Amino acid sequence: MFANFKQDCGGTWPAYVEHSFVRQIGDGTLPEASFRHYLKQDYLFLLHFARAYGLAVFKAQALEDMLQAKAGLAAILDLEIGVHVKYCAGWGLSQEDLQREPEATANLAYTRFLLERGLAGNLTDFHAALTPCVVGYAEIGRHLAKAAGSVEANPYADWIAMYAGEEYQQVARAQIAQLDKLCAQEQGSERHRQLSETFTLATRLEAAFWDMALQCQL
Amino acid sequence: MFANFKQDCGGTWPAYVEHSFVRQIGDGTLPEASFRHYLKQDYLFLLHFARAYGLAVFKAQALEDMLQAKAGLAAILDLEIGVHVKYCAGWGLSQEDLQREPEATANLAYTRFLLERGLAGNLTDFHAALTPCVVGYAEIGRHLAKAAGSVEANPYADWIAMYAGEEYQQVARAQIAQLDKLCAQEQGSERHRQLSETFTLATRLEAAFWDMALQCQL
Amino acid sequence: MFANFKQDCGGTWPAYVEHSFVRQIGDGTLPEASFRHYLKQDYLFLLHFARAYGLAVFKAQALEDMLQAKAGLAAILDLEIGVHVKYCAGWGLSQEDLQREPEATANLAYTRFLLERGLAGNLTDFHAALTPCVVGYAEIGRHLAKAAGSVEANPYADWIAMYAGEEYQQVARAQIAQLDKLCAQEQGSERHRQLSETFTLATRLEAAFWDMALQCQL
Amino acid sequence: MFANFKQDCGGTWPAYVEHSFVRQIGDGTLPEASFRHYLKQDYLFLLHFARAYGLAVFKAQALEDMLQAKAGLAAILDLEIGVHVKYCAGWGLSQEDLQREPEATANLAYTRFLLERGLAGNLTDFHAALTPCVVGYAEIGRHLAKAAGSVEANPYADWIAMYAGEEYQQVARAQIAQLDKLCAQEQGSERHRQLSETFTLATRLEAAFWDMALQCQL
Repeated sequence: MFANFKQDCGGTWPAYVEHSFVRQIGDGTLPEASFRHYLKQDYLFLLHFARAYGLAVFKAQALEDMLQAKAGLAAILDLEIGVHVKYCAGWGLSQEDLQREPEATANLAYTRFLLERGLAGNLTDFHAALTPCVVGYAEIGRHLAKAAGSVEANPYADWIAMYAGEEYQQVARAQIAQLDKLCAQEQGSERHRQLSETFTLATRLEAAFWDMALQCQL
Repeated sequence: MFANFKQDCGGTWPAYVEHSFVRQIGDGTLPEASFRHYLKQDYLFLLHFARAYGLAVFKAQALEDMLQAKAGLAAILDLEIGVHVKYCAGWGLSQEDLQREPEATANLAYTRFLLERGLAGNLTDFHAALTPCVVGYAEIGRHLAKAAGSVEANPYADWIAMYAGEEYQQVARAQIAQLDKLCAQEQGSERHRQLSETFTLATRLEAAFWDMALQCQL
Repeated sequence: MFANFKQDCGGTWPAYVEHSFVRQIGDGTLPEASFRHYLKQDYLFLLHFARAYGLAVFKAQALEDMLQAKAGLAAILDLEIGVHVKYCAGWGLSQEDLQREPEATANLAYTRFLLERGLAGNLTDFHAALTPCVVGYAEIGRHLAKAAGSVEANPYADWIAMYAGEEYQQVARAQIAQLDKLCAQEQGSERHRQLSETFTLATRLEAAFWDMALQCQL
Repeated sequence: MFANFKQDCGGTWPAYVEHSFVRQIGDGTLPEASFRHYLKQDYLFLLHFARAYGLAVFKAQALEDMLQAKAGLAAILDLEIGVHVKYCAGWGLSQEDLQREPEATANLAYTRFLLERGLAGNLTDFHAALTPCVVGYAEIGRHLAKAAGSVEANPYADWIAMYAGEEYQQVARAQIAQLDKLCAQEQGSERHRQLSETFTLATRLEAAFWDMALQCQL
């Protein structure tokens, strides 16, 4: 269950959702160079995220799981990548800039870990690795949007609005529901330990992604 | 290249596209029991075919290959399965009948071989295993539709019309183009031999699928 | 647990371990052509079985599971394939004959199903698909060796002796122990249902392998 | 070909084999804490490296490729891990210390990238990702052993001696031969570009591994 995994995370969860990068987005003080580096890396991240949803289609044992994965895939390839490219253009980054960017180590670590879990584990392991990303962004969006003054006159206001928006919040709720449904089929403390470990590691890798972005590292 | 692989097949290609099952579809003499068995097995086949397209998304190295695989996946899950279920209903088969059906050995052989090629080989190996199915049905459709009298008063007329139709023919042409594009990146006689072997084996497994259907075997 | 899965199989288990092929091995009446066809297909089977153990190494989460899979792999590549080639030579089949043999549909169905389970499922799914092969042969060996007169003056006496022998019996007991250990981590009725379904299907595919061998089919 | 890929790397290759970590090993000035951190991470690395060789068994199309991969797997599980555990004990690290260690981001990045290449690409892609590790260590060993005074009175002398030793040098030469053999089957400039990109990225991730070790990072 999502709620248990988040609790098992201990300090790793707030280290991710309350990271300096996130706080500086919230108060608008994040250096533009960091945000641009983040946008470029996030483009590459989305491509591998789409591949991961392809794997989830393959792993599905029931038609409804296949449709759930296909919807996730379509959301990325039909919508998010287009939105991302357009958004990047507003920050002066062409699609060529995005494609030319080398992949940062922290980006490789999270995306390849996700793909490897998608293949070595079963569908539940995959969703345990995926959920911190999808749900953490929703939590960050909600939290930043609530903070007084975070939206107006903030260069990152539209980024916050996107993740705080109802459309994205619903994606995150559906992700929690999917993880919880799969976990309900996986009783036993040994499986809980493995899944929780995967969830915590994925959360740590999200925080490492913010580090990389903040410091404009490869 | 598709044209080379088809030629390398020798008698295996006509053994597939001119199989007794196909000829009996063409002249309307195929026993209904065989057709119903085929429809039930084809439903299970489509589910694994969709999983294979999920794998192709994962294997893609370029965005355009990802979109091509996603289109194939969407065609199956959004369109073909729905059409299939509706079509089966016309033959007295409910979706419950379809889901209850055990998978025939010949069905397992082809679908799992395809999935295994999709994982053990690269994207070209996958398309070499996939193409005989997609393109062979188009060839069968065209051929049967041309044969005088095959369409009127034939209980299988709409099945023929579907595969002879422009929509399906275009899918098949796109499949040939995709295979040829990938093969152009794979020079060298050893790779040609491997890919051709995969193509021939997939063709043989399509013929085995007709055998299974004709004889109502599991 | 193995004992439950075997019971869930119903008539599928005896249809495998008491198949005509097995009975004709036992009383020595099996046509030589069938046995030779079986030997050639079994060589190809062993190669894919080795690949499956390679996958099990990849899927392992604990060092002991990795070592267990590596031992299985080494048993096939260092021992069984050599024994098999030598044994085939005694039946007039050279290694070239074995390598030239096309893979039968029933062989593809079982080996590719096993590999696909090894990738799409987790390690427990893999062992549920693997166990009917390893343990069924041990049961067949024991049973045939016990039947009076089955060993003397039977052209297949050494085949029976190999699978009835203590070395192989121990491999089978270890396989049951491994499956049971993994199943103990997978509580929940939905997982039991999936694993049992995999076990039953693998058992059915073993019987289909005997059919293929008996009828010298591809 | 290895020689081409190394040249394509440009400055990335020396950034790996002449990294500060390597130089400080050579002159014995590396802080013990960095070496111990390296040893702990390298233990985890070896476990995933063994999994990668398991995948290579699965990907093999020819028996000789299977045996090559099995030899690599056996070398790690039967020999290297044992040597590593014993060596770590000499530095005051118990096997429990090794198993308790969380995996560093740079470790995840390289090992999971390798496993993902092993699954998404073919056997050549896998070996392109694997080779910088195996061959780079051999080059480092040779180079440090030659440097005057690097062996005597250096706390890392036995580490240097191991990688400079003939046994390891032979492993590295065999790795080059395997990569070159597979590349000879993969003509065409597009494949060369992909394989070279994989080789360069793996080399960069090796350098990132040294960074992580030097700075005792997770």
